[in-house]
Amino acid sequence: MKTKIAVLGAGSWGSMLAAILNENGHTVQLWTRSAAQAEELNQQHTNEKYIKNYTFPTNLRATTDLETALTDATDVLFIVPAQATRSVAADVAPILQKLDLKPHLIHGSKGLETTTHLRISQVLAETIAPEQRESISVISGPSHAEGVAQHDPTLVTVASDDFDAATHFQKLFMNDYFRVYTNSDVIGVEFGGALKNIIALASGALAGLGYGDNSRAALMTRGVAEISRLGVSFGANPLTFAGLSGMGDVIVTATSTNSRNYRAGYQLGQGIPLADVIANMGMVIEGIATSQAAYDLAQTTGISMPITEAIHAVLNQEETVPAAIHALMTREGQTENG
Amino acid sequence: MKTKIAVLGAGSWGSMLAAILNENGHTVQLWTRSAAQAEELNQQHTNEKYIKNYTFPTNLRATTDLETALTDATDVLFIVPAQATRSVAADVAPILQKLDLKPHLIHGSKGLETTTHLRISQVLAETIAPEQRESISVISGPSHAEGVAQHDPTLVTVASDDFDAATHFQKLFMNDYFRVYTNSDVIGVEFGGALKNIIALASGALAGLGYGDNSRAALMTRGVAEISRLGVSFGANPLTFAGLSGMGDVIVTATSTNSRNYRAGYQLGQGIPLADVIANMGMVIEGIATSQAAYDLAQTTGISMPITEAIHAVLNQEETVPAAIHALMTREGQTENG
Repeated sequence: MKTKIAVLGAGSWGSMLAAILNENGHTVQLWTRSAAQAEELNQQHTNEKYIKNYTFPTNLRATTDLETALTDATDVLFIVPAQATRSVAADVAPILQKLDLKPHLIHGSKGLETTTHLRISQVLAETIAPEQRESISVISGPSHAEGVAQHDPTLVTVASDDFDAATHFQKLFMNDYFRVYTNSDVIGVEFGGALKNIIALASGALAGLGYGDNSRAALMTRGVAEISRLGVSFGANPLTFAGLSGMGDVIVTATSTNSRNYRAGYQLGQGIPLADVIANMGMVIEGIATSQAAYDLAQTTGISMPITEAIHAVLNQEETVPAAIHALMTREGQTENG
Repeated sequence: MKTKIAVLGAGSWGSMLAAILNENGHTVQLWTRSAAQAEELNQQHTNEKYIKNYTFPTNLRATTDLETALTDATDVLFIVPAQATRSVAADVAPILQKLDLKPHLIHGSKGLETTTHLRISQVLAETIAPEQRESISVISGPSHAEGVAQHDPTLVTVASDDFDAATHFQKLFMNDYFRVYTNSDVIGVEFGGALKNIIALASGALAGLGYGDNSRAALMTRGVAEISRLGVSFGANPLTFAGLSGMGDVIVTATSTNSRNYRAGYQLGQGIPLADVIANMGMVIEGIATSQAAYDLAQTTGISMPITEAIHAVLNQEETVPAAIHALMTREGQTENG
């Protein structure tokens, strides 16, 4: 069955997922707030600000009108920034009711809502009534849009409490360069994607200090271990963090100079003050807000998150990066089991 | 309590662990078969063939005489190539009996015995009688010796069935740049270290074909998933493969051009025939023997190991690298759960 999918958000990842779905033979309506961007996509079939040198399928349609995008939609993909999801979903809800639609919902946002510490699927569940949605899923994994544009073999995971919904989206998205696994652990998949930027920030800081492969691999492994501990305290399966949306996404984010968070961490490691780093970057460094959220959750739950605490201390100028590393390295010996 | 440790094997990793133990205040006797190497270590305090531009502690002693190395030893570290462990252990056993010693044993070899498919701790257990050993442990993790030489913060794990032995070695090795975790899962730690080179080979092949970050992260994640499945069938804890000796070591090995296996895979990805790759490398490519062992074990146990099977097919010239990747990408959709 071919479906009609509304893709809400035309950034690099949203527009690329829209292109995949279109290539796979589905009808796609791509929504963006920007009239200029919609026109560029419809006329030039490009989205230069977000994906350079890529030509989109000519029959992929973009619109700035949410109702047009949602008309006849069997599926809705939310792929706006994490902090914008609630407001977009609040606009979507009455239109679904008016159009008498009950689509499958899926999102690809990586983050927690910082004001509430809620996961994005929870935000969707709060904002769109059960009568107006068939299911809620999340798509996540190691997937730079630039790599997908080049048909770099890419593997992602779709998680849902509803197994049929996960396999539905697996079939929708999968093709010979984009392979989709299903996963039943929504909590684990969302925590992994949301908190990976903390590790990217720390990984950049180690590189900025001149440290090498050993310390980076150690940081990534122990970083995932503490994110896993936090996720497990909220009901996640610890094995999820060894999967595509956990370690897989951490690898892609914490080893790539394409990652903003890695680059920001690199400057911190070089001893550049945070205010200057933020000014240098000129865009949002998600890891900063995320590390605050993770720090808060660690305090609330009593979960040990030494790397997150170290990053938090560095960002709040309570500690230098070298001092934070020394403190981490000279803690009492621990076990890997639990 | 300061101990006397015999370190058997003076390659890059053995000599570096000997240096750490010496720096930590323990008495160390480093054994090598090569008289020239022993003399270089004792006179010049260097080991140039294995670690360039590094000066060893002046009081670190090397010897070619196994009985001298073992005299008064409270601990014995085996750090010879996996396939040589049995013969060295067979030489050690009667000396321990003659000297009436019962030391703690630990090894740092990454591999399976290819003739028997045994793990190295099993080889030690078979070769040295229980009366001549207090315990058996394994040390593993993401640790290029070159990084440790530069005091790159490095994290490793020591696994033993005997918790007291693991904490004993944790205390022996740990300092402010070398941090040791304990682990009770010997099987998982040994399988991770042994099979990581298969993933390094495959990671190199993807890079040689020109693929990027997405596919590398996906390969590493799904590679660890299948190694984990195999290990679990032998009694390992699946979470061990998300740890330092699993994903951690895979990250260091499969993202580094310092890895022989990665470099060999790179050439295979470029379409160079295997015989030429082996000739070009001029040294053993462990991943080739390991992938055969893993393939055999997968056949025996019935465990699904699609990446190992693909590498095996490429190495046996039954399939090209691009065809193997296409076959992997177009398999039926799977779940990450189990």
